[in-house]
Amino acid sequence: MAFTAEELSSCMKNQAPGSPELSFLSFRGGFHGRTFGSLSCTRSKDIHKIDIPAFNWPAAPFPQLKYPLEEHQKENAAEEARCLEEVEKIIKTWKLPVAGILVEPIQAEGGDNFASPDFFRKLRAIAKKHDIVFIVDEVQTGGGPTGKLWAHEHWNLPEDSPPDMVTFSKKFQAAGFFHNVDTRPGQGYRNFNTWLGDPMRALQMGVIVKEIRDKKLLENVRVTGEYLKAELEDISKETKAIQNVRGQGTFIAFDLKTPEDRDKLVGFMRQAGIQSSGCGTRSVRLRPMLWFQPKHAKIYLDGLRDAIAKLKL
Amino acid sequence: MAFTAEELSSCMKNQAPGSPELSFLSFRGGFHGRTFGSLSCTRSKDIHKIDIPAFNWPAAPFPQLKYPLEEHQKENAAEEARCLEEVEKIIKTWKLPVAGILVEPIQAEGGDNFASPDFFRKLRAIAKKHDIVFIVDEVQTGGGPTGKLWAHEHWNLPEDSPPDMVTFSKKFQAAGFFHNVDTRPGQGYRNFNTWLGDPMRALQMGVIVKEIRDKKLLENVRVTGEYLKAELEDISKETKAIQNVRGQGTFIAFDLKTPEDRDKLVGFMRQAGIQSSGCGTRSVRLRPMLWFQPKHAKIYLDGLRDAIAKLKL
Repeated sequence: MAFTAEELSSCMKNQAPGSPELSFLSFRGGFHGRTFGSLSCTRSKDIHKIDIPAFNWPAAPFPQLKYPLEEHQKENAAEEARCLEEVEKIIKTWKLPVAGILVEPIQAEGGDNFASPDFFRKLRAIAKKHDIVFIVDEVQTGGGPTGKLWAHEHWNLPEDSPPDMVTFSKKFQAAGFFHNVDTRPGQGYRNFNTWLGDPMRALQMGVIVKEIRDKKLLENVRVTGEYLKAELEDISKETKAIQNVRGQGTFIAFDLKTPEDRDKLVGFMRQAGIQSSGCGTRSVRLRPMLWFQPKHAKIYLDGLRDAIAKLKL
Repeated sequence: MAFTAEELSSCMKNQAPGSPELSFLSFRGGFHGRTFGSLSCTRSKDIHKIDIPAFNWPAAPFPQLKYPLEEHQKENAAEEARCLEEVEKIIKTWKLPVAGILVEPIQAEGGDNFASPDFFRKLRAIAKKHDIVFIVDEVQTGGGPTGKLWAHEHWNLPEDSPPDMVTFSKKFQAAGFFHNVDTRPGQGYRNFNTWLGDPMRALQMGVIVKEIRDKKLLENVRVTGEYLKAELEDISKETKAIQNVRGQGTFIAFDLKTPEDRDKLVGFMRQAGIQSSGCGTRSVRLRPMLWFQPKHAKIYLDGLRDAIAKLKL
């Protein structure tokens, strides 16, 4: 029996209502996971995207700041302004309507790239101006490692402009998102699945949040983070082996001069029993537990000093 | 600062390697979930697809069989042959290469639509001939309701041609997929996430499988299913109120004459304390627990007879 031209054509287009031609804007260097929709927004490494089709969605540049921040204020402000201009240009010229902006508070997989609270406030304002959903991906930053429960709390967004949606996972064990009431679908069962949110994981997350509060772990993260960052900046000045020390809370990273140096350093640290993982092309990132204290940080820093000495041999 | 034509063009295309222009074939009436990639393959109802972009992937017709099967053998065989022809036509003419075929053993959300083992054997052979990954979506059918642990066991596929991948969830509590070694990625960390398979759920699934075996629940499903189907066929003949009784194990459905009759019947049943859910436009589906026995089925059938009597008033 024949396959008619009409039938082929009806297969070609997804039937209305549904499946609109919309796009999502994300940033070069961003990582938003590996499932189909989020992978289209992931822009950190090719390895994640091999073999898997992607939506033709736009990638904006994410600011590449220079360190120390206090010595490059003018340049960094110009770099952030340039990226925001490009975001608006994409929104105005992209061949599909841009329905959402998806951004990490700190680009983690991409190399621990930071931007200023001012950048994020302006980005949020652009989204609002163009009536675009503003989604903050806090899978890595949520749950306390920056010294606040959510990294976007550092931005001081206007009270009437919180993120439209925030995603979370990792530190909370439970994975999910929360969103403002405006983004709740009008019809029942639009946001639905068999497990309806996995109540057991939600309970587990509740216990984790209680622990964070009871044990004042955010305060501990702030104290430890300040100590760690100051010591790393000292090591940077003394040895010149590590550069671009940057961080919020204990969510800290620094660069080696080359990818080879970075890999060697991570190896020396591992031999000394210290887990120290790379990110980006030549960065080392710190991701300690929330109860990591200055006394633990001291062990790390001593190990790092030894590893740097070996690197110079 | 300007957004150069080169930069815009580099945003337009996803960079190689990665993000190839490939498509997936699924069937009209199929439901494969609501996440981005699987939603592109879902073809049951518009409500699931509203507002959400989709890949431009092809939908093939799924056989629409006539009941009772023994009275429509020739027509049904012709209908299945027509659908298979259209599948091959799509594979040969679709504007993107077809990388996979995704099919439910029984289209559940779409209205409990069945096809013969012969149809699935031939579909699997088409996938093999064109070197296309053949994925069986057993989210609804897996775990025993058809009287076998996997519905595709009813097909008697050649030993060297099992499905390339099988997805599961629901009855197993754990959600996931298993696949043959040929579809394992060559590089490490290609199939990776933070939770690496959720070991607690895997243990839970192991306990469920042990219960199914120890309590001989598949045998129970077969016995109860045969009883239920025979009784429903009797009710169909006696009352003419229900039609197209069809099923495998206790995965059984029947049609009312109109959507209004169906909704009324489901209402009467609910008033009598019997949960009885609709599917498709005018079908009622049965999805009892695996330990549902003829004595429980009798309560259901008595309630159904009463509801049908009310329907005629």
